[in-house]
Formats: sequence, C-alpha cells, structure tokens
Amino acid sequence: VNRSRGSGEDRRSREDVRLRGFRDRATLEEALAWVDARGVTLGAVEVPLEEAGGRVVAAAVVAAKDMPEVVRAGIDGYAVRAADTVGASPYNPLSLRLELPGAGGAVLVAAGCALPSWADAVLGFDAAQESGSAVEAVAAVAEGAGVEPAGQGMRAGAPALRAGGGLGPRELALLGALGLVRVGVVARPRVGLVVAGPKDAPGECDANGPALRALARRDGGIVEKAEGRDLRAALRLALGGAPDVVLVSGRTGTGPDDEAPLALAECGRLELHGVALRPGGSVGMGVAGGVPVVLLPGDPLACLVAYELVAGRMVRRLAGHPPDLPHARTVAEVARKIVSAVGVVEVCQVRLSAAGVEPLGVAEFGGLGAAVRADGFVVVPAALEGYAPGARVTVHLH
Amino acid sequence: VNRSRGSGEDRRSREDVRLRGFRDRATLEEALAWVDARGVTLGAVEVPLEEAGGRVVAAAVVAAKDMPEVVRAGIDGYAVRAADTVGASPYNPLSLRLELPGAGGAVLVAAGCALPSWADAVLGFDAAQESGSAVEAVAAVAEGAGVEPAGQGMRAGAPALRAGGGLGPRELALLGALGLVRVGVVARPRVGLVVAGPKDAPGECDANGPALRALARRDGGIVEKAEGRDLRAALRLALGGAPDVVLVSGRTGTGPDDEAPLALAECGRLELHGVALRPGGSVGMGVAGGVPVVLLPGDPLACLVAYELVAGRMVRRLAGHPPDLPHARTVAEVARKIVSAVGVVEVCQVRLSAAGVEPLGVAEFGGLGAAVRADGFVVVPAALEGYAPGARVTVHLH
Repeated sequence: VNRSRGSGEDRRSREDVRLRGFRDRATLEEALAWVDARGVTLGAVEVPLEEAGGRVVAAAVVAAKDMPEVVRAGIDGYAVRAADTVGASPYNPLSLRLELPGAGGAVLVAAGCALPSWADAVLGFDAAQESGSAVEAVAAVAEGAGVEPAGQGMRAGAPALRAGGGLGPRELALLGALGLVRVGVVARPRVGLVVAGPKDAPGECDANGPALRALARRDGGIVEKAEGRDLRAALRLALGGAPDVVLVSGRTGTGPDDEAPLALAECGRLELHGVALRPGGSVGMGVAGGVPVVLLPGDPLACLVAYELVAGRMVRRLAGHPPDLPHARTVAEVARKIVSAVGVVEVCQVRLSAAGVEPLGVAEFGGLGAAVRADGFVVVPAALEGYAPGARVTVHLH
Repeated sequence: VNRSRGSGEDRRSREDVRLRGFRDRATLEEALAWVDARGVTLGAVEVPLEEAGGRVVAAAVVAAKDMPEVVRAGIDGYAVRAADTVGASPYNPLSLRLELPGAGGAVLVAAGCALPSWADAVLGFDAAQESGSAVEAVAAVAEGAGVEPAGQGMRAGAPALRAGGGLGPRELALLGALGLVRVGVVARPRVGLVVAGPKDAPGECDANGPALRALARRDGGIVEKAEGRDLRAALRLALGGAPDVVLVSGRTGTGPDDEAPLALAECGRLELHGVALRPGGSVGMGVAGGVPVVLLPGDPLACLVAYELVAGRMVRRLAGHPPDLPHARTVAEVARKIVSAVGVVEVCQVRLSAAGVEPLGVAEFGGLGAAVRADGFVVVPAALEGYAPGARVTVHLH
C-alpha cells in the first residue's frame, strides 16, 4: 500500500492536514502492511554468551557434539560394576575395594564427571558405607543405575536452537553445555528518537522520551535520542546517525504547530498519515534516506498505544522478534460493556476483577492516569461497536 | 529456621555431606522462609526518568499538580464560545472572526495547548471552514466540547504511583506528564557470582554463568562475576566486592569435589544445605560477613530451577520486586500424567498443546535439551504424587 499523495502543485496541500483534519485515514491493516513491507530482520553479529541474554538467535544452532560427550555419573557415589552388588542388603553387606578400578572395586565419582570405562553403575551414598579401604554395598544396583549415557541430553547433529528464537536462561545454559562461548544473534536495531513537544505545552510531551526508550529497549532496540534547535534539525540529526528506524513523537496532528509530517516530507517522503486507531490516530509513516520513519502522537497515552500497535512492530521486526504485541495474554469475560466506534480500532484500557473485564475509558486524552491503574488492554476491531457483557475477549496484560 | 549444625568437634563432620548424601533435607518452605527473613528491600536512589525503565518505585508518588495544569484544547481546531455556534449547520454557516479573542471570534489551537480563558469549546476542523479572515462554523458545538478540564487526567494530591510498583512505559509517561525528571527507585542489588565447574567435567558448568547473569538481571540485579584460582579464593573475592547477595554455582553436592558448602562454612556460616526440591536439591544457603550466600547446583537445569525457586526470590526481594515466580501463568488441564515423588517439590518441564499439559520429563540431569523445548513448567507440591489427566494445573510460562 503506497498512500503517498501525488506530486506537483497538488502535493504540499494534500500532505498538509493542518487546519483541516484527516480526511482519509488509513486502516490499521494498511499501516501494519506498511510496517511489514519495510521491517526486515537485520543481519547477524557474534556476541559472547555472557552478553547474549535476551537476544535473538540469527541462525539455527546444531549440537556439534553429544551432550554429555562421554558416559557420566548421574549422581554422586561410587562407580561400580552392578554385578558386584547382586544380593547386597543391610543384612548382607557386600564389601568392595575402595579406589580399586575394575571388578570388585568402587571408585568415588561426582555427578557430572566421566564414569570409569570398567564401571556400569553408580552406587549412591544411601546404599553404601565406607569403612577404611572398603565400601560396603547395602543394596544392589542395576546396570545403568546412576549413569548418564553419552548423548542423553542431546545427540551430536541434533537441532539445539532454531533461528529466530529468543536467548533466555535455558537457551544460554544449553549453548554453554554444548561448549559454545559465542553465538550469532540478530543485530540490535538502532532507533533514532526525536521528541518534539508542542511549543506552548512544555513538559507534557517530554513524557514520551523515557517511555519510548523503555519500549524500544524492550523490543530489542538501542535508542539514540537526537536533539536539535527545532524539529527539522533534530530529524536530520537522527537520520544522520545511520539509524534503522526513526521515531518522532509529537506534532503529528492537525494543529497549527503540527510540523512533523511536513518535516518528514521535506527529508524524504510521507507515505501514510492518519490511521483509524484510537487513541493514536495521528500516527504517520514515511521513508527518508532509505530509513523508515514513524511519527507518533504527542499525547502520552496516544503515543504509547501508537508505539505498541504500529512503531513497536517495526522495531520488533528489525530485531527479529515476533512482530505481534509482546504482552502476555489472557482470555476473560466482559463484565461491563466495552464501547467502541465502528470504523476505528480502539485500544481500551481495562481492569481484570473476579467479575471479569471492566473498561477504564477510551478517551483520547486524560487517560494516562487511568491507564496506569489498568491491568491490561483490549483491542476492539474496527468492525465492532465494542463488546457486550459476557463476551470473551483477549486481554493484553501490562 | 536456623538449621546451622552445632559447633565444636561435631561441626565439621555434620556440615560435610560429601561421601554421605543428604540425610536431612530442608523443605522448600524452610528454604523460602530463610530467603524471606534475609531478603530485605534495599534503600532508594534517585535516577533520571530516562534510566528508570524497569526499576521499582521506592516511595509512593503523589501528583504535585493537576494534570493537565490548565484547561486545554483536547482536539485540534478553533477555540470558540459555544454560544456563538448555536444554529450553525452546512445550510446555515455562521461566520466567526479568525484570530479575534472573545465573543464572535475563533482562535486556532492545537490539542494539548492551553485554551484561551474566554473560550469554552473547540470547533474541530470537520465543523469549520476557513475563508480569509473568517471561519465558518458548519455545526454547533456544546459548551465543553473538545475541552480538557484542568485535572481531568489527575488531580493535585492524588496518588500517582504506589511504592513497590514497577516503572513501565505507562508509569514513565505519567511521571513525565507530572513534570518529574528524576524518580526515587529501589537500588539494584549487587549480585556476586562465582561459577565453580567440577574439575573433570570442563565446560559443563560454565554454562551457568551466562544463564545466571541473565536471570539475575531480569530480577533487577547487577551481576559481578568473581574469578579466582579456586572456589575459596573466588568466594572471598566476591564477598570483598560489597555485594548484597552472592550466588555460587557448582560443587554443592555430595561428591568428593563438592567444596562449596565447606568454603561457605569457612567464610561464615552454612545454615541450610539440601532441599527437598527436584531438580536442584543440592541448593544450600548461609551468611558470610553479613551477606547472604546461596549455593546452586552445577548441573545446568538444576541450577536454573534452584535459581528460579530459591535464589531468584532473594534477588527479587532485595530489588523490591514481587518475590514470587515472575513468569506469566496460565491454568490448563493435564493431558498426560505428571509423575512426581511424594516428599519432594518437583519442577516438571511441560509442553502446552491443544490437548493440554504434557510433561517433558523430570530427570535431574540430561533434561536441558528437553527444557529448551518446553513451553513452561509446573511446580508439583511435596504432598502430591503428581497430577492425573484432567487435573487443572498452573503452568509458569517460559
């Protein structure tokens, strides 16, 4: 979908929605298609395992060796031959020679260490009693008891990790156990950030810097804030930093000072401005110097919503993360009617109680105080007027 | 619960479980009570809002001013007096004087900006048409339409954030909107990390460093790895770094090389060693120089489980996070029997399919490959033999 407005004499006026309002909002699907077309997973970099937590695996990892590589003791105890313990009981302790390798012997082993080749079982301390140079077995052990065969955890050549998966503690532990000290991961997207507060509402829109930084980091980005004497200068500075995407917050609406869309059009191309999304409907996007630029509203809650639904998807795609909303979800029953306008995707902050899902209001502004008290949000599709009590809805948990 | 074993001649031998096995494992409840008694939330530090993402609010934040502080335009448009638009329609456009403050006037305003004191409504661009020095209202607006009253988002004096809450994007946005640039947060616990691999299973236990680093970071900690010529030297080095807690991974079992409990007893006091938990049963804890020290198994999966259930709780408590397991949860039906031993808390890796919850095996070792394929884990209480098909269980999602 290329919604760039024609060129020529008509161009500036059509791009400029100031003092007019949005005539022709894109659907959220169109906005997401724009993101999906431009958000291509970045290339791979190698990092030490110690720094790989939270990163995304760039290429499938195959086990280069058996895990474990050799037959190991699975428990602490004495390596023995199982046959030497047949008939052992507390009433019939069988004496084994301590530290004698081979038949009739018992050699101390620790869990995780290589099992001597002559042994085929480990006698646990609960089944043994040491006395001088002998160990008395007070229970029989079966062949293989307490033994961890080579390759039990994973066979050489087996797929260990798939490309695109996240590196959590288990994956890091597995790579370590496979003997790796470095791993190829998707490069972190460089996110240029321009925060443009309105001239006569100082403070308000600076709110978005810390929040956007936290969000982009969560999605795998490295945020570099650009500041300039004005919006245009800051945008040019951000674009000069070789970013993978630029986010501009503020001045995207239809007011007299809403210069972000024009600034983007001057640096490159404004391809889409105004989305049927509430809050967050003044979101815009385009390309400048080959870099995708997403314009986010200045209103803090609208900015958060537009980030989560639109801009965050771009960061997640670049970072190789799953593009959909990253929140944990739950399905629950609506307790109090959720109202929404047809033709607009509404993001409704909700509380979850024993009664079910209750909306906290969907006002475009003033909703931040309520949002902080919300347990999650419900995305109401454009085709629906909302949800009646009793409807089962997906809640994205904050 | 103080399970430290007496002093005197009897002391060393009772602390030393090597070549004997655990005779007397603590319950998981006792281990958690130990953690809860020693894991006290750290003090507060002030940080810039830009760096506060993910931190924990140290003291309740009260709104110092109304949000917004003044009556504002809630939408882009023209500030007007509602009375001047009564009767306006496309068939009866009413002309207002552009940029004339007061009765009969219309002044351009942007959403979020202060509303002129003489105005009581905002005429949106969809209801207005500019022509020269006039604006034609083509629809009537009610008093208060498009206006955001002072304090609509939050009143001065209202509780904005409670102590102990996390600083996510919404909270950061709210603090920014309230005009704050710094916030008091709980200090990050300094987590000393000693990774002690077994002598003759090189590589294996180094796996735990990256995983423990990622886990402790997730729980709010700053990890400082200490390395020394041996376990004792590394532990002393870690304790010298003024940590809030020290984690030692490896050499906690009953094998001949399992010197971690003895090293801790030499530096301070081993208070508990061996917990009825599987995997992870060789976990131990004590205090050295006033610093809590948690001993974690060397086996990678056992180490992860012991961290999640025991050591992580300490890090989370110090960091001011909720102490319970931080994983998202879901409740689902058991599809295939989950087997567990009575008297031991078992952590069972499971997959979630359309059929329900299916166990992936609870082996003490070799389970890492399976754990990576798991969707989550189920904690089976010590009193149960497991769960039969059809039972509803809580799955902690990876």
